[in-house]
Amino acid sequence: MSDPFVVVGGDAAGLSAASKFARERPDGDVIVYEKGRWISYAHCGTPYYVKGEVEHVTDLLSLSPSEVEDRGIALRRNHEVVAVDTDDRTVTVAHDGDRSVQSYSDLLVATGARAVSDPIDGSSLDGVFTLHGIDAACAIRAVLGEPGTDPVDTSVEAVDRETVERYTAWEPPETVAVVGGGYVGIEMAEAFRAHGLETHVFQRSGHLIPPFGEAAGQRVAEHVREQGVTLHTDCAVEELAGDDRVEAVVHEDGRLAVDLVLVGIGIRPNTELLSGTPVELGESGAVTTDDHGRTTVEGVYAAGDCAETRHAVTGEPAWVPLGLTANRAGRAIGQTVAGTPSPVGDIAGTAVVKAFDMECGRVGLIDHEAAEAAGFDPVSETVTAGSRSGYYPGGDETTVTLTADRDSGRVLGGAISGRDRAAIRIDTLATAIERDTTVAQLERLDLAYAPPFSPVWDPVLVAAKVLNGRLE
Amino acid sequence: MSDPFVVVGGDAAGLSAASKFARERPDGDVIVYEKGRWISYAHCGTPYYVKGEVEHVTDLLSLSPSEVEDRGIALRRNHEVVAVDTDDRTVTVAHDGDRSVQSYSDLLVATGARAVSDPIDGSSLDGVFTLHGIDAACAIRAVLGEPGTDPVDTSVEAVDRETVERYTAWEPPETVAVVGGGYVGIEMAEAFRAHGLETHVFQRSGHLIPPFGEAAGQRVAEHVREQGVTLHTDCAVEELAGDDRVEAVVHEDGRLAVDLVLVGIGIRPNTELLSGTPVELGESGAVTTDDHGRTTVEGVYAAGDCAETRHAVTGEPAWVPLGLTANRAGRAIGQTVAGTPSPVGDIAGTAVVKAFDMECGRVGLIDHEAAEAAGFDPVSETVTAGSRSGYYPGGDETTVTLTADRDSGRVLGGAISGRDRAAIRIDTLATAIERDTTVAQLERLDLAYAPPFSPVWDPVLVAAKVLNGRLE
Repeated sequence: MSDPFVVVGGDAAGLSAASKFARERPDGDVIVYEKGRWISYAHCGTPYYVKGEVEHVTDLLSLSPSEVEDRGIALRRNHEVVAVDTDDRTVTVAHDGDRSVQSYSDLLVATGARAVSDPIDGSSLDGVFTLHGIDAACAIRAVLGEPGTDPVDTSVEAVDRETVERYTAWEPPETVAVVGGGYVGIEMAEAFRAHGLETHVFQRSGHLIPPFGEAAGQRVAEHVREQGVTLHTDCAVEELAGDDRVEAVVHEDGRLAVDLVLVGIGIRPNTELLSGTPVELGESGAVTTDDHGRTTVEGVYAAGDCAETRHAVTGEPAWVPLGLTANRAGRAIGQTVAGTPSPVGDIAGTAVVKAFDMECGRVGLIDHEAAEAAGFDPVSETVTAGSRSGYYPGGDETTVTLTADRDSGRVLGGAISGRDRAAIRIDTLATAIERDTTVAQLERLDLAYAPPFSPVWDPVLVAAKVLNGRLE
Repeated sequence: MSDPFVVVGGDAAGLSAASKFARERPDGDVIVYEKGRWISYAHCGTPYYVKGEVEHVTDLLSLSPSEVEDRGIALRRNHEVVAVDTDDRTVTVAHDGDRSVQSYSDLLVATGARAVSDPIDGSSLDGVFTLHGIDAACAIRAVLGEPGTDPVDTSVEAVDRETVERYTAWEPPETVAVVGGGYVGIEMAEAFRAHGLETHVFQRSGHLIPPFGEAAGQRVAEHVREQGVTLHTDCAVEELAGDDRVEAVVHEDGRLAVDLVLVGIGIRPNTELLSGTPVELGESGAVTTDDHGRTTVEGVYAAGDCAETRHAVTGEPAWVPLGLTANRAGRAIGQTVAGTPSPVGDIAGTAVVKAFDMECGRVGLIDHEAAEAAGFDPVSETVTAGSRSGYYPGGDETTVTLTADRDSGRVLGGAISGRDRAAIRIDTLATAIERDTTVAQLERLDLAYAPPFSPVWDPVLVAAKVLNGRLE
């Protein structure tokens, strides 16, 4: 009997791979080791659980352990893979104080990423949270919990009862600070405002959601201010102060008394398991992979938030840890390991975010520094155009930024923001970019027109027209 | 002095061409002849004017005559071009009982299309309308007019006062029939229901909005029924009965007493002006044009609803009279005539429609007969998937139909329907189709994911995955 396909990590990438493998090779063995209690949860849904828009923590769970087992997958929760020997093709697994060794035929490292908070002094105080994982979401919801409701159902087996109960006992906060104006920060500001809290967002740079470009950042800033959020841009947080519990944010311009802090300043790939192995990491610190998700060591794959993926615009590896990338790569690797080689697909850096009623999307290379580093000669235009025919009610100004390469005319990236169906329009640009489209070709696309959905010239076409005028 | 650029028709294509020409060649002469009183109006907005969602008829006008003149365009309303001599390069113009001859350097035929109603006996009765043109919209709104409001402002100079006043005097209808379940019919059913009328839609074939495919047609049928519309599908209308005024719809299965009838069974290109000239028409009856909008006769261009355009999927001429096509071709022809040859762009047959709260989009070749006629071996799949993450509120089932060519795997066409941002998603498919994308490539596109806007696997990706499974 051959050794099993071993998967480290029971979330999007890991379980997608295991499920696909089990479906394609019902006779094969696959083991998934998950060091924690939670599996297969919707990370991107956690801000909406904190907000209360998603009612139960269980709503965020895609698959239960028994559903996973029913797929023919051996699921081992609370099992941490602590070492990999790529010569012997074994992993060492720690569980309940014991260690064991398991051989593998193929290994998928899908260890994910973790939220970073350590650059900020005081981030280990009580009342300081990051939002990475269900436990953090439950703890924050427990703090915010409205009287008369049971915000976190501790009958759910995997819930960390002790932490939840400790935070449930806290007085609900009145003033909260969000450190970091990226998309997690903005989503959490929306969540806190929904609970009626005085909400401050601190952003080190001059505009919010930097990967979406300046125009989108400005629209979001204006909108979140209208929603009662106090923005502190160009303002670095120096320290979170307090004894046991956080009491204040000490920043460049002063000190703000707070009851709770959410730190959303980025994440870092979990690759410690691979140190000491010949598996190479990329410049980003995430695992280098090829177009089939293979690492530099035979029989070892990596996928999800711990891995790099080839970028469709640059052709180079990039680390853009997002949900579709993880699911897609996991599924492809499961199929490859099962015997049918399947490419994981490039990424285009497509991302969308909701900030209260404002919607933003971004794709590709928008920033000129990044485009120049990739060897392009970037030129950008930003336009604002209506989302619907001017006479049709309910539309909103839609802001489109397009970046192209001056020499080839190729569209390199773009961002779209607005309150009326703006985010999903980014898929048009994502498709154009992945299919190597020039600005002139984009300008002539036969996009949809009907008064309730788009003006005759869709905002994307308007942007292409203006940018093309500069390229011609 | 050289002869002017002469444009026949003062709507989207004609005025786009004249405007672009005037901007590029401020020293050049351009004359626009419009046989009617209205220019540059938003045809696609007329159902929403009838509905009352667009309040004033003037809201539908993009450009006033004086704005057109300010652009350096000689606008001649109530001037009908009645003959073209392509040898002499002249047109004969009728105005106020007189005729005159005008030479041209280049000629653009942008005569549009007209609604068809003559196949139905009784279509000339009072109370039977088509919806093509502002006059028709004003007349219908006058009939529906609510007491205490002045639905059509007869101080607007171009309004046909006599007709409006005659219809204003009518008792508001209680029961209306819409003959034709295409998009005009469905939009008008929505408008009539907004006025509280008992609304019947008669459709000769088995499903509504046939160009959108069966799945979209079924979703729309179900939805409009929920909105109180009575559907008569597979039911041909034999006659509209009445003395002067329409009193009943006589159909295959019986007779329905009605107060008003809207016939929306299609349109026909206005090409009579060219009969007797060597300008060739295509199979559709619309004018044959090349990739620059040139007809088969030198110096004569055609654009808009009277012209064919090359289809991106078949590479063959097609007649898909829609707003963007007209505007885009007009603008390109204006630029070409001004001295900078500019392609008009292919069409992909992209169209979107709102049916109450249901949104539908379509693009390319969906129908197998059409795909086979174009030399493809079509295969289709229809899937239904959520528009948002399952746990996020406010989403709707989104139905996606994809048609591909079995041999090449190329995506040929698709349709999307649903209540949550479904229509605008068609632009993703339009872009994919115009950029020659295979189903396998579509399946691996990095499309947007965030719980409020899309599940991890966007419905388009789900459809591609399922269809690709059949192709592999």
